Amino acid sequence: MKKDELTLVKEIRDRFSLPEDIGIGIGDDAAVLNLKSSAILTTDLMIEDVHFELSYTSFYHLGFKIVSVNVSDIYAMGGDFKGFLFSAGVPETVSDQDFKELFDGIEDALKHYGGFLIGGDLSRSKNIVLSGFAVGEAEKPILRKGAQAGDLIFITSYLGLSSAGLNLLNNLSDDEKRFIKSIRNFKNCKEYPDRLLKFKGINEILERHLMPIARKPDKFKHIAKAMMDISDGLLIDLHRLCEENKVGAEIYLDQLPIHPAITKIADYLNIEPMNPILSGGEDYELLVISDRQDAKEFGLIPVGRIVEEKGIYLIDPQRGKIPTKPEGWQHFQ
Amino acid sequence: MKKDELTLVKEIRDRFSLPEDIGIGIGDDAAVLNLKSSAILTTDLMIEDVHFELSYTSFYHLGFKIVSVNVSDIYAMGGDFKGFLFSAGVPETVSDQDFKELFDGIEDALKHYGGFLIGGDLSRSKNIVLSGFAVGEAEKPILRKGAQAGDLIFITSYLGLSSAGLNLLNNLSDDEKRFIKSIRNFKNCKEYPDRLLKFKGINEILERHLMPIARKPDKFKHIAKAMMDISDGLLIDLHRLCEENKVGAEIYLDQLPIHPAITKIADYLNIEPMNPILSGGEDYELLVISDRQDAKEFGLIPVGRIVEEKGIYLIDPQRGKIPTKPEGWQHFQ
Repeated sequence: MKKDELTLVKEIRDRFSLPEDIGIGIGDDAAVLNLKSSAILTTDLMIEDVHFELSYTSFYHLGFKIVSVNVSDIYAMGGDFKGFLFSAGVPETVSDQDFKELFDGIEDALKHYGGFLIGGDLSRSKNIVLSGFAVGEAEKPILRKGAQAGDLIFITSYLGLSSAGLNLLNNLSDDEKRFIKSIRNFKNCKEYPDRLLKFKGINEILERHLMPIARKPDKFKHIAKAMMDISDGLLIDLHRLCEENKVGAEIYLDQLPIHPAITKIADYLNIEPMNPILSGGEDYELLVISDRQDAKEFGLIPVGRIVEEKGIYLIDPQRGKIPTKPEGWQHFQ
Repeated sequence: MKKDELTLVKEIRDRFSLPEDIGIGIGDDAAVLNLKSSAILTTDLMIEDVHFELSYTSFYHLGFKIVSVNVSDIYAMGGDFKGFLFSAGVPETVSDQDFKELFDGIEDALKHYGGFLIGGDLSRSKNIVLSGFAVGEAEKPILRKGAQAGDLIFITSYLGLSSAGLNLLNNLSDDEKRFIKSIRNFKNCKEYPDRLLKFKGINEILERHLMPIARKPDKFKHIAKAMMDISDGLLIDLHRLCEENKVGAEIYLDQLPIHPAITKIADYLNIEPMNPILSGGEDYELLVISDRQDAKEFGLIPVGRIVEEKGIYLIDPQRGKIPTKPEGWQHFQ
């Protein structure tokens, strides 16, 4: 990077302003947010070679994703997203253009979610470190606690896409990785290399891994008794929710929706398709517990129920009831 | 580190609990804080070999300091500190004991300031990266904006201690560095190596650099028109405050208090003592602007006044009015 910290901070400050009635943004010792109810606060790190790899991830994707993973936690509490603070440690190899694209991604994500950048910190570092901090508010936060035996378990969309995307990305050629890295809008991209075109739905798979969209719970949060986001995988996250409530859960394997591209990618990579669906992380869909039989009408997909007996069990129409370990599907097979 | 992330998170969660009336702490997707007024939010990074060096800095110091530097920003807004979120990226070389000491430092700092750890994230990283987020609240935040020509400029204590401490630390032998690293309580330590004993006040100097205490403005914030913390040095921070208010400032050199150890260390290291005082960073004292002539009675030290003419000027009883550059004293000499 050629620009110094003061120049960068000035550029960022000019680019991200905050309406006066909402508070005071970048430029003072700290930001001020005028909230109407309880503050909801969360933070998530993304570190190079741990959470992402630059061979196929663009700085734009990184900027978008660091917002999404944090907003997902706010949404998982039933909160409204308001403000975002962003700190970055970057090595000298990161160019001014990379830096601009990082903030393009942050800006587009913030526009999507309707929140504002209100602070942050910048520093040199050996590897790229991104630290996001999201602030929201909620009249009545929805916790992981609140589930009882008899309640139904819902998810908000297909699972396993991010994990399948990651698996596929790691198996691409350097040229294919560079191409993926250049995509800003996966929805509109029609020019995939021939080999990738056979994976119908490839755009959804790649987008879910590289720039996931947090799931807003507005349509169903009023019927949720407990909620969390699925960031580490359905089995482990459901296990955490059940631990919190001292209950167990049954998942009906035949009710789990399977994205068409997952089957193809699993076949291509020679993996079990249920593996990413049950244990793949980073989908940022929501896990919703409700006692409402009509929850489908609010866009929720029923996949199981809460039971008294502790443990997570898969119910397979052929094989019956199968116990799992919280670590995931791979330990159960 | 031998412990896995889940074990560490569980230990941290057991150690740091949050009273129910304040909100919901570690363990859900996000934390909840019940605030009575506007939320004050800030974040600061500390990165190995950029912000600190492990040869003389203990993990305990790091834990304490990452809280202090963030709380300082909350105090600089006239806010009450409430909650802290802490993320760390650590290499495998960091031991379970190092990690425990890091959280000892965080715990002691939080006890000192009366705030709670309410969230965070942990990850592997090539170098140590600490990211803190402090949350506070204020009925009426005190901004950098608010100063007018004629107002008086105050500081809250000696300046330059942290910078002199850093200079001294970099000139110590390996044995001396190891000794310094082992100190938890600088106030009570009486066993400094002989060479260091000649610097009367050495404990204050080292403490200010390694585990600074943020300055609480409760006694004087009602008379402050504008305020900020001095994190990068008096000249540059005063320059920032003046820019925000489209004014200038005069600093009376003969009014700046000089800590006795600064003179000795400056002599020993062959540097100009005014250098750390005017341009040394990381003291985390407050810069307070007030029009109250009786501000001394609230513990404030007058050092200058706001003027219409832009620029920062030093007033020397011998040499008269000397213009400075915002970059600091070294550019002015």
